[in-house]
Amino acid sequence: MAEIFIAVDAMGGDNAPKEIVKGAVGALEDKRLSILLVGREDVVKRELSSYKYDAGRVKIIGAAEIIGNDEQPTAAIRKKKDSSVVKGLNLLKEGQAQAFVSAGATGALLTGATLIVGRIKGVERPALGTLLPNAKGFSFLIDSGANVDAKPGYLLQYAKMGAIYVEYVLNIKKPRVGLLNIGAEREKGNTLTKEVYGLLETSDINFIGNIEARDMPLGAADVVVCDAFTGNVVLKYTEGFAKAMLGMIKKELMSSMLSKIGAVLAKGAFENLKKSFDYSEVGGAPFLGLKALVVKAHGSSDAKAIQSAVRLCTEFTEKGITRRISESIQKDNIKEETE
Amino acid sequence: MAEIFIAVDAMGGDNAPKEIVKGAVGALEDKRLSILLVGREDVVKRELSSYKYDAGRVKIIGAAEIIGNDEQPTAAIRKKKDSSVVKGLNLLKEGQAQAFVSAGATGALLTGATLIVGRIKGVERPALGTLLPNAKGFSFLIDSGANVDAKPGYLLQYAKMGAIYVEYVLNIKKPRVGLLNIGAEREKGNTLTKEVYGLLETSDINFIGNIEARDMPLGAADVVVCDAFTGNVVLKYTEGFAKAMLGMIKKELMSSMLSKIGAVLAKGAFENLKKSFDYSEVGGAPFLGLKALVVKAHGSSDAKAIQSAVRLCTEFTEKGITRRISESIQKDNIKEETE
Repeated sequence: MAEIFIAVDAMGGDNAPKEIVKGAVGALEDKRLSILLVGREDVVKRELSSYKYDAGRVKIIGAAEIIGNDEQPTAAIRKKKDSSVVKGLNLLKEGQAQAFVSAGATGALLTGATLIVGRIKGVERPALGTLLPNAKGFSFLIDSGANVDAKPGYLLQYAKMGAIYVEYVLNIKKPRVGLLNIGAEREKGNTLTKEVYGLLETSDINFIGNIEARDMPLGAADVVVCDAFTGNVVLKYTEGFAKAMLGMIKKELMSSMLSKIGAVLAKGAFENLKKSFDYSEVGGAPFLGLKALVVKAHGSSDAKAIQSAVRLCTEFTEKGITRRISESIQKDNIKEETE
Repeated sequence: MAEIFIAVDAMGGDNAPKEIVKGAVGALEDKRLSILLVGREDVVKRELSSYKYDAGRVKIIGAAEIIGNDEQPTAAIRKKKDSSVVKGLNLLKEGQAQAFVSAGATGALLTGATLIVGRIKGVERPALGTLLPNAKGFSFLIDSGANVDAKPGYLLQYAKMGAIYVEYVLNIKKPRVGLLNIGAEREKGNTLTKEVYGLLETSDINFIGNIEARDMPLGAADVVVCDAFTGNVVLKYTEGFAKAMLGMIKKELMSSMLSKIGAVLAKGAFENLKKSFDYSEVGGAPFLGLKALVVKAHGSSDAKAIQSAVRLCTEFTEKGITRRISESIQKDNIKEETE
């Protein structure tokens, strides 16, 4: 087996197990890694039988249960010890894998990750980061869904973790970190953002100040820091708005013969645009601040999305992101203690 | 002069005074109203000289000063007594006009409105409502920019005021009121939304539960209630995202000869789409909960936008929205007192 071990939840998501297993097998293209497929053994075996792959780099970890989207996260994690999520997270805890990808229930995954894998020492709250497409590329939005009632210190840590992720996994040198706010001036915002501004300003990250939401889609920052309520609203709104707008374009184009012909001729252009907003191009959302990497893949992930999530896990592991985050947070804590 | 008097800030906004005066003159088409143009007398007179209009229904209210976007709102309102904003708001206070439209600095307008015009008895915080385009029409987003640190009781009042506005000014019977949240289930959200859910549930409005941001652009609710930080982020994000997406479409279409031809043929369809996201079609944002109506027009308003903002003011006045809001809020207060 190779040196990097990525665990994949074969049972989570709308297209499980078929697309998940297909994506995991596809990810084996990268010779550096091995895959641990977590799920019902008979189901996973049957899916695997459709493909040719290097069997020496795939292992099935049996898990009889599945946690559904409608289950209360904490209760589900406590009760369903034999679920694919709990089993997968335990692989990280025991050091048998370096990362775990799941397209299953978000709440259970994040709760389980914090309970089972545990936080890096000094990290107040792990946060979910999501790559949002913009006119120039992507912005990494953190926290996009983990801690709805955030304290100022959390956001400072999100900024640090996000900057490390974007610098090393996405290869953007000295990423521009912006604070999502309702005005560009430093005195703008709510109680939370006003306090966070001060913290970011005196930190060692490349803080470029407040980012207004209208400048985000134009690519104003590489890392956009916010509380999870705001972040999740922006994330979901992007999804809905892109869908609504593409639907409106379609409707408009179908409204006259001339524009119908136009639409046919411009089809390639629209496909490219749709691709820009296609989450499968981007891979999953890393849950940063844990002792090992947990990635939440979109519920509707297809094989391509899973493969690209696994690719992010490999980069994350190779670049030693967990260690880098730990060092960055520790440095602050030492500074605080000596002050 | 006619029975309804609408004051218009001739000096506020990127296109003042030209477009503002043009829009105000255009609004005179509606014979029910008279316009009070507030601004520098010589400037307004010169602009007016370009048009033919019923001079008996236009009056200039001299105001020598202008409050800029970069001024601290409270200080500006206190110092610049002879500004178009302070003069315009005083017209409402003195009962000389029923509504005031300004495309000038938002902060000064809202602060001035609360200080000079004053709140309806029982209203905790006036809130800004904005009509956001969606796939089926519009959602009225309230609060979209007034009170960044909101308490649960504020949001209950936003819901009531928004429902009255949408029902009577936009003619939507029993408008569907949704709470903007990060999940559909009632237990989802942050401390604020969880409390607000309980308040809305037991109120007499047509509360349809939590609305996820992804369902907003698809037209899931007529009134979307949220705190001003979230609302302003959504509002500005919509602006930026629509712009970015249309830019991306353009770039894609220009990428090949075939799609260029397609783009020419489909031009009408794109113009229609752009129009859907054109704020001038929608008019301004009403600041609800005051003793008289104050409307914030978009900073980049053209004549058409100003005319449509004046139209909203006329409807608002004719339908007695201030009285209706007052009655709705009073009813609650009486209920509270007797309980």
